[in-house]
Amino acid sequence: MASPEIDALTQALARLPGLGPRSARRAVLHLLKRRETALAPLLAALDAVNERLVTCSTCGNVDTNDPCGVCSDPRRDGRALCVVEEVADLWALDRSRLFPGRFHVLGGKLSALEGIRPEDLAIDALVRRIEAGGIDEVVLAMNATLEGQTTAHYLAERIERFPVRITQLAHGLPVGGELDYLDEGTLAQALRARRPVA
Amino acid sequence: MASPEIDALTQALARLPGLGPRSARRAVLHLLKRRETALAPLLAALDAVNERLVTCSTCGNVDTNDPCGVCSDPRRDGRALCVVEEVADLWALDRSRLFPGRFHVLGGKLSALEGIRPEDLAIDALVRRIEAGGIDEVVLAMNATLEGQTTAHYLAERIERFPVRITQLAHGLPVGGELDYLDEGTLAQALRARRPVA
Repeated sequence: MASPEIDALTQALARLPGLGPRSARRAVLHLLKRRETALAPLLAALDAVNERLVTCSTCGNVDTNDPCGVCSDPRRDGRALCVVEEVADLWALDRSRLFPGRFHVLGGKLSALEGIRPEDLAIDALVRRIEAGGIDEVVLAMNATLEGQTTAHYLAERIERFPVRITQLAHGLPVGGELDYLDEGTLAQALRARRPVA
Repeated sequence: MASPEIDALTQALARLPGLGPRSARRAVLHLLKRRETALAPLLAALDAVNERLVTCSTCGNVDTNDPCGVCSDPRRDGRALCVVEEVADLWALDRSRLFPGRFHVLGGKLSALEGIRPEDLAIDALVRRIEAGGIDEVVLAMNATLEGQTTAHYLAERIERFPVRITQLAHGLPVGGELDYLDEGTLAQALRARRPVA
């Protein structure tokens, strides 16, 4: 019979997305067999994240400082603000290094199914940032899902009264996408947004 | 850009079996969004395992005590010894509560492919336990895989000189198994080991 410590660790790991009870048990055994090379580094990394990371009170990013590295970077263009659903989206866009402005993390998306309402997201904070001025463009970079697009529509309505340009990411064929394999929704978007050949 | 703390945690999680880089990143974000309900319990559980768990010097089980709870349980029948590949196997058999004896964990299986030789497993320790006497039966409870069965054959040869009964788990149809869906190997084993109807 496994000890209560092992049960507790198995349960904590099983709650991670992508791991179920069986894979969590396998992960625990992996850690137990590799105390020095796997368990100790994971423990240290978790501890560091727990001790040092804070949520940026301006944009919602997670970083060692508040304001975060993105918000406090003077080379960034404060006039462009990119609104994303999750911190992961901020990181994804930041990895691409294509957006020179700042970010705003909503912390989720509107969802009737999951009961997530506007007041559950950082929407009032977004409105206050825009209200404070200095922003020319707001990029609504929601996911291309029904809920993401619903959220974008809602946000566009909330901020249309401000003198800012409201844009959203283009929808269409992904790089390498083959027509034959793409879903009809993507094809419809790509066709609707077709552009003249230069 | 994610902080070095987050990168370190992502990498530590990505090395767990069943998680890759993408799912590890998702897991990290899950933890960051739920500092109190997910990150803190996982950290505490890992810490407890790291601090309190030891490997039993008798059987190889992982427990808070050495000798472990199974080895020190006076209600267990010390004359029957069940040899398993991994600690997980010991737990699986122990959960079933069908085996009243003690256990011996090899810590793996012989594998030419992975270069695992007899001296890499707790085989000498097993021989010493049998040599010390008091054991009537050794159950070779290896997995029903090629490597598991190779290991069982090797063990049987190593311990055949001792006055103990050497047995192995029965092979055949699993409970609920439908002939139509079972592999030929299982069917062959089940047919070969067929028994007279009572």
